[in-house]
Amino acid sequence: MIKLESYLSGTWQTGQGDPQVLVDPATEMPLAECASDGIDRGAAVAYAREVGGPALRAMTFAERAAALKALSGAIHEHREALIELSIQNAGSTRGDAKFDLDGATGTLAAYASFGKRLGDRPFLTDGEGQQLGRTPRFWGEHVLVPRPGVAVHINAFNFPGWGMAEKMACSLLAGMPVIEKPGTPTALIAYRIAQIVVESGVLPEGAFQFLAGSAGDLLDHLGPMDVVAFTGGSKTAALIRGHENLVRHNVRVNIEADSLNSSVLGPDVDTDSELYGEFLANVMLDMTQKAGQKCTAVRRILVPKDMVESVVADLTADLERQKQGSPGDKDTRVGTLTSSGQLRDVRAGIESLAENGHVRCGGADSVGDAGYGIRPTLIEAIDADADTFHELEVFGPVASVLPYTGEASEAVRLVNRGGGGLVAAVYSDDADWTTEVTLGIAPWHGRVWIGSSRVKGQSTPPGLVLPQSVHGGPGRAGGGEELGALRGLSLYMQRTAVQGFQGLVQKRFGAPTADSED
Amino acid sequence: MIKLESYLSGTWQTGQGDPQVLVDPATEMPLAECASDGIDRGAAVAYAREVGGPALRAMTFAERAAALKALSGAIHEHREALIELSIQNAGSTRGDAKFDLDGATGTLAAYASFGKRLGDRPFLTDGEGQQLGRTPRFWGEHVLVPRPGVAVHINAFNFPGWGMAEKMACSLLAGMPVIEKPGTPTALIAYRIAQIVVESGVLPEGAFQFLAGSAGDLLDHLGPMDVVAFTGGSKTAALIRGHENLVRHNVRVNIEADSLNSSVLGPDVDTDSELYGEFLANVMLDMTQKAGQKCTAVRRILVPKDMVESVVADLTADLERQKQGSPGDKDTRVGTLTSSGQLRDVRAGIESLAENGHVRCGGADSVGDAGYGIRPTLIEAIDADADTFHELEVFGPVASVLPYTGEASEAVRLVNRGGGGLVAAVYSDDADWTTEVTLGIAPWHGRVWIGSSRVKGQSTPPGLVLPQSVHGGPGRAGGGEELGALRGLSLYMQRTAVQGFQGLVQKRFGAPTADSED
Repeated sequence: MIKLESYLSGTWQTGQGDPQVLVDPATEMPLAECASDGIDRGAAVAYAREVGGPALRAMTFAERAAALKALSGAIHEHREALIELSIQNAGSTRGDAKFDLDGATGTLAAYASFGKRLGDRPFLTDGEGQQLGRTPRFWGEHVLVPRPGVAVHINAFNFPGWGMAEKMACSLLAGMPVIEKPGTPTALIAYRIAQIVVESGVLPEGAFQFLAGSAGDLLDHLGPMDVVAFTGGSKTAALIRGHENLVRHNVRVNIEADSLNSSVLGPDVDTDSELYGEFLANVMLDMTQKAGQKCTAVRRILVPKDMVESVVADLTADLERQKQGSPGDKDTRVGTLTSSGQLRDVRAGIESLAENGHVRCGGADSVGDAGYGIRPTLIEAIDADADTFHELEVFGPVASVLPYTGEASEAVRLVNRGGGGLVAAVYSDDADWTTEVTLGIAPWHGRVWIGSSRVKGQSTPPGLVLPQSVHGGPGRAGGGEELGALRGLSLYMQRTAVQGFQGLVQKRFGAPTADSED
Repeated sequence: MIKLESYLSGTWQTGQGDPQVLVDPATEMPLAECASDGIDRGAAVAYAREVGGPALRAMTFAERAAALKALSGAIHEHREALIELSIQNAGSTRGDAKFDLDGATGTLAAYASFGKRLGDRPFLTDGEGQQLGRTPRFWGEHVLVPRPGVAVHINAFNFPGWGMAEKMACSLLAGMPVIEKPGTPTALIAYRIAQIVVESGVLPEGAFQFLAGSAGDLLDHLGPMDVVAFTGGSKTAALIRGHENLVRHNVRVNIEADSLNSSVLGPDVDTDSELYGEFLANVMLDMTQKAGQKCTAVRRILVPKDMVESVVADLTADLERQKQGSPGDKDTRVGTLTSSGQLRDVRAGIESLAENGHVRCGGADSVGDAGYGIRPTLIEAIDADADTFHELEVFGPVASVLPYTGEASEAVRLVNRGGGGLVAAVYSDDADWTTEVTLGIAPWHGRVWIGSSRVKGQSTPPGLVLPQSVHGGPGRAGGGEELGALRGLSLYMQRTAVQGFQGLVQKRFGAPTADSED
């Protein structure tokens, strides 16, 4: 059996203690084990700060961008082997595996592209310079400088490739070394990617470290210049945000937690229209892709009351055609959940939702054909206002149809009951209605996706996170923000105002095109 | 005796329970009392969300900017009375009082100016739009929308006017109603300003509330759309950042805490030069203004070893000429500390610093001529690396001279030992040396101020916070950020990506100049 190793302080090392066992969720066969007692996490933090950080910051933005591009290529070279591993370790179908891996390489490549024109100065200029005194002689600029610490990334099990790559891309381009801690159930995939990253030799020593297993006392070693970025459940999120050492040193923390994403069908959408078809297809995709284990997947489908019957009938018919089964089988459309714990939680969640609704397909007992599989489950709410629909994220192929009046204000009220989310999708060709809903829900969301006839077939689906747009959300979703092109770098940088003689400040710290005397 | 009232839920109200007594720190005579038991803080939060917020957000940015300008004017009309009150309640000299009050009105006016060109849409566009698909038809914009919650501002005692106005300006312009809680020792001044704000009728009902006394259970009532901005000591800061309800709901928290600001004298500065004179004058100003009770005041003065004797002699001579006394007396240059607790802490702090240095003037027992006064105290470090100098913020007219080699790298190392600060000042005419120091200390600071011969006499001093430049700092300084022109609004707004058909998204959510079809 494979023993997962950590790459820390410049060497591959194995921990002691009782190992956690990683299994194939389709067969429950053990695949690998992972022990991490006795690993010196404090030494890894020091190694990042003292070895990785200085080496990384000695590179220009353009050089770091080139490294990201090379990493993207190195991982892509192993795409086929990683797909196979993903099918084994994550219960992913071939399509799901590609989604994760191509998301990883695509995001690295995107940041390579964002970074290549950032020049060769060791900082970025933020915004325009300003006259601060009575004359322009006393001048101010703002710069973004890399933080001379380490970025600790605590990643979720559902996207072992993409999740890690997304956080790495921003941090490394900004100039901060990383320690990547994967979600343990799928850590075999992350481990293989870590091996590829290390073997590529693309990054300077110490810029990339990998901790398989428990975070242990890692957070106790962090200080003012370090960053923690976490993706996962809200309970762990609260432990991190309230962590005594992080609080004491005002360590920067970015959280992406639970999200009850919604899709709102506008009252103007005809059930014969192509837009309606796209709505159905996107809901289907969110419910089946990664067996619904996607932080951006729709959980609440708001449908005008007079269209509920049609929507439920259409979705149910489509969902029942999707074969749930062994992820390696060619005709399988819905893979398995990733662990027995997930299966238990999803079943319990379906039972809670069903207390306030009718199960239209699937259900808590609809065990799939393989391992931790469960059939796609659609629930029609009896009372769209019941708390469960807005507060319980069931992390599987499960969504609820919530009937509403069709009024924009009612859509806004119901969507915002989610308490803060990553994404909401709105389908309508009525520009005023769409604008009202969008502005009403925007404060509670990191992203609003608008479907309309004019863009049908040319847009990426709402569940897809694009590196150009911010990803995160307030409240229940964690209050964090990642990606959004260069916006994603600011978590890893300090914004500093520089004030002084214009000739010096503008030339040395202002935008490179500034025409100034020294 | 005056009983301080709170303005909450649309009425002035007085709390119950044992009152705190506010005194004149020069005479220890009681001035006012403040009790806040039994005040319904939860109702105030609801009032802000339900009454103040919607009314404020119904105004355009330009209208809110005009309200800030009117508030600035209303407060300025009472300048003379407020100066008198400040002399009585804060131990401020007339100059200190003006500094606080003109800072308040100036910042409100500056934000009025920043806001007046923001247009009449209920949001701001962030950055440029982006093509997201293979063609520009699928398009993305980022918007900043006001958060539909309440901003709770917990202000420090040292700037009862400026501190409150600075936070109010950003929040109200962004569209968030405020609850202002002043630091109790000087709450009489804040109370009078609150009366002026309410009596002005400039703001819609519920947009401005004022809580005199304890925060009580205020933070227990906050949720995902609310904001807490705190300025004060690091112990209280940690309690707020780790507060269970704030953590659970991912309430946004901004902290400005302790800061051991530094001034670095470059080795190229001649003691006969005007730049040297400016260095001395700025250190003097920081040590004496507000009796050193300024979060941006210099605490660590880095001086090349061969210049220490000269700097200490010159500063000591200047400091000894400054009359410490009753703040109302015309010849007083150094007012009193604000409370008996402050005096006790400052004396204990001087004793700690003196364990590793020589007291060159003033001292722990150098009681001033009035009340809680203490003489300006300069300490020459024996070992510039002793922890105390870099970790203990003595919040009074106290600073330490730390000898260093004159090398840029050594200056950077010592300055950064402060663990994160609000501002560092660098004095030099050597552009390369200045750039090296600036970039070395930038990650640990919110602001770097550069003094040079070319800008001498035209710059504001380093201790002055300008609304155009960000104010805050990492690590010990709290990890927060305020002001910085429109950057200061983002704490009170949600950044949301909007994706969809270009014709809709660009026209409805993009920069107003965009040329687009609908």
